[in-house]
Amino acid sequence: MTTATTNRQWLLARRPSEAVKPSDFEYQEGPIPTLADGEILVRTIYFSYDASQRIWLTEDGGYMQPIQIGEAMRTVGIGQVVQSLNPEYPIDSLVEGFMAWQDYVVVRADGPMPLRILPVADYPLSWHLGVFGVAGLTAYFGVTDGLKVKPGDTVVISAASGATGSLAGSIARAMGAKIVIGIAGGADKCQWLEEKAGYDATIDYKNDNLTERLSTLCPEGVDAYFDNVGGDMLDTLLLHMAPQGRVLICGAMSSGYTDVQLQGPKNYMRICTHMLTVQGIHLFYYHDRLQEGIEELARLVKENKLYVEENLYEGFEKAPELLPTIFSGKAPGKLVLKVSDPS
Amino acid sequence: MTTATTNRQWLLARRPSEAVKPSDFEYQEGPIPTLADGEILVRTIYFSYDASQRIWLTEDGGYMQPIQIGEAMRTVGIGQVVQSLNPEYPIDSLVEGFMAWQDYVVVRADGPMPLRILPVADYPLSWHLGVFGVAGLTAYFGVTDGLKVKPGDTVVISAASGATGSLAGSIARAMGAKIVIGIAGGADKCQWLEEKAGYDATIDYKNDNLTERLSTLCPEGVDAYFDNVGGDMLDTLLLHMAPQGRVLICGAMSSGYTDVQLQGPKNYMRICTHMLTVQGIHLFYYHDRLQEGIEELARLVKENKLYVEENLYEGFEKAPELLPTIFSGKAPGKLVLKVSDPS
Repeated sequence: MTTATTNRQWLLARRPSEAVKPSDFEYQEGPIPTLADGEILVRTIYFSYDASQRIWLTEDGGYMQPIQIGEAMRTVGIGQVVQSLNPEYPIDSLVEGFMAWQDYVVVRADGPMPLRILPVADYPLSWHLGVFGVAGLTAYFGVTDGLKVKPGDTVVISAASGATGSLAGSIARAMGAKIVIGIAGGADKCQWLEEKAGYDATIDYKNDNLTERLSTLCPEGVDAYFDNVGGDMLDTLLLHMAPQGRVLICGAMSSGYTDVQLQGPKNYMRICTHMLTVQGIHLFYYHDRLQEGIEELARLVKENKLYVEENLYEGFEKAPELLPTIFSGKAPGKLVLKVSDPS
Repeated sequence: MTTATTNRQWLLARRPSEAVKPSDFEYQEGPIPTLADGEILVRTIYFSYDASQRIWLTEDGGYMQPIQIGEAMRTVGIGQVVQSLNPEYPIDSLVEGFMAWQDYVVVRADGPMPLRILPVADYPLSWHLGVFGVAGLTAYFGVTDGLKVKPGDTVVISAASGATGSLAGSIARAMGAKIVIGIAGGADKCQWLEEKAGYDATIDYKNDNLTERLSTLCPEGVDAYFDNVGGDMLDTLLLHMAPQGRVLICGAMSSGYTDVQLQGPKNYMRICTHMLTVQGIHLFYYHDRLQEGIEELARLVKENKLYVEENLYEGFEKAPELLPTIFSGKAPGKLVLKVSDPS
């Protein structure tokens, strides 16, 4: 039970047309919600920051219901059960799943990514949003199942310093790739990728000539490309894929995920002429394999094969101002906001 | 040995910028070529007509060397060996492979699609350009290996009345698809598809509303889409794919294969959100499985599961005027030109 009486909230005030801004949200205090049958009241502890949140802000919502004006901003989060009308989620359980920018959220256990009770483990709790969360699991299944990276492969990963990309490189390395190349913006990030995140080589797309660097680093073509960016970068990579290469479509950061029509890959007929396989990935379709993924990621962490970088902020009041930084990509790793402590 | 002294030829006179026209070629008579070590002189009998010929006419050439101004137009063809400096290809052998719009062509046995000696069989010789040639093999491997059509699948095939599409429908049916839907232009072709080519249902893209018809015919989405068209049609289909559906990229007829930049699929992020698999197909990568494909196609023909439609013309002089009809698609089935008789 909670003894608090106010519930801080960040509501969507206006639907952004292009880049999302902190002023698109407004602060409000409301009552602690009451529960209906089967529902669970969760006190939020950590908010995850993900590019997909921008998709939920579009009119269409993409693969989920769009967030409505006046509704609290949706987030993947970690929290603690404070009331429960679902016996599978006892009070005090630490849980991960879809939440909102509120102190207290009402959650149902069903849905495409059911609320997950977190095990007591030797790792920081917030890692369940990063390496053991959407980012890590997407990197893991993307590299192993989507791209099927195997020994000897030449692997390229874009948005390599992001939450997913920074883990995908090490996972590709662990799968025996011949060379793992990260694409990121700026010399600092590239240095970080090579020194910390296990990348063999990097391309600074802001300062290097992508075509020239790919020709130099991948003279026989790219076997596996993990695409988080789309746009012109995807088009350039399509021209550098090896015959029968594999492309993973994981994101389109270059689009900013606004309502503006995406730029389709103009060079997509390379898929035909080079007999490429282009595989999409979405964790909704891995719901029965998440535990397997988490165990494999934990093993890689234990064997020091994964470098986990967290970019941790603190304070409920910061929730809106951090969202745009997902696209400006100021710092490498997983962006997380801590809003309270576990009891 | 041949006793002929002239070699009729159709040479590329000018590189077409948009649609190819008969006037892009010029007629010439030359001497019978002489052979160098390892070469084979083939008298041509049948010319195949394929959309890929338009790609070879671009500056870039696509997946092969571009055809140069003054060079005889490349074609896949059937011919008979009249001189040979390669003991594996004895005189009088009937062969299929890359040839040119000439009476006599010099062929080497190597290359991405080696010259194939045709077996004596119960079928018309020209079928080795259609059902047992590029069209049939692309349809067979596209449906079975690329799309992995399985019992219960909802399958959609575009350019369904074309050489490849008209066979792909029956092959999908033979693989146990629940419903096989063909997209074609015009009521006549749609009627032909349903009455002759084994399609369960059709969409006339010139007269029907594609979105409405797909919603009606595929209420649970499309499991497998064999794309020969690209453009807006591919974009519409992407919105109708079932989760984890498969798309085969086989062609982009809507582009006309000119040098004009292709329109990329704007809805390609469906690949991510619906976790689609997009597979390219190109027969160059099946060179070690062609015999298997031909045997399976022969079995389907024998079991009356494949309807073979040939659209046969005769006369060397017609070579250029038939090429544009590949894109206007006047008649269903495989377009072939007979230019001589086997001896």
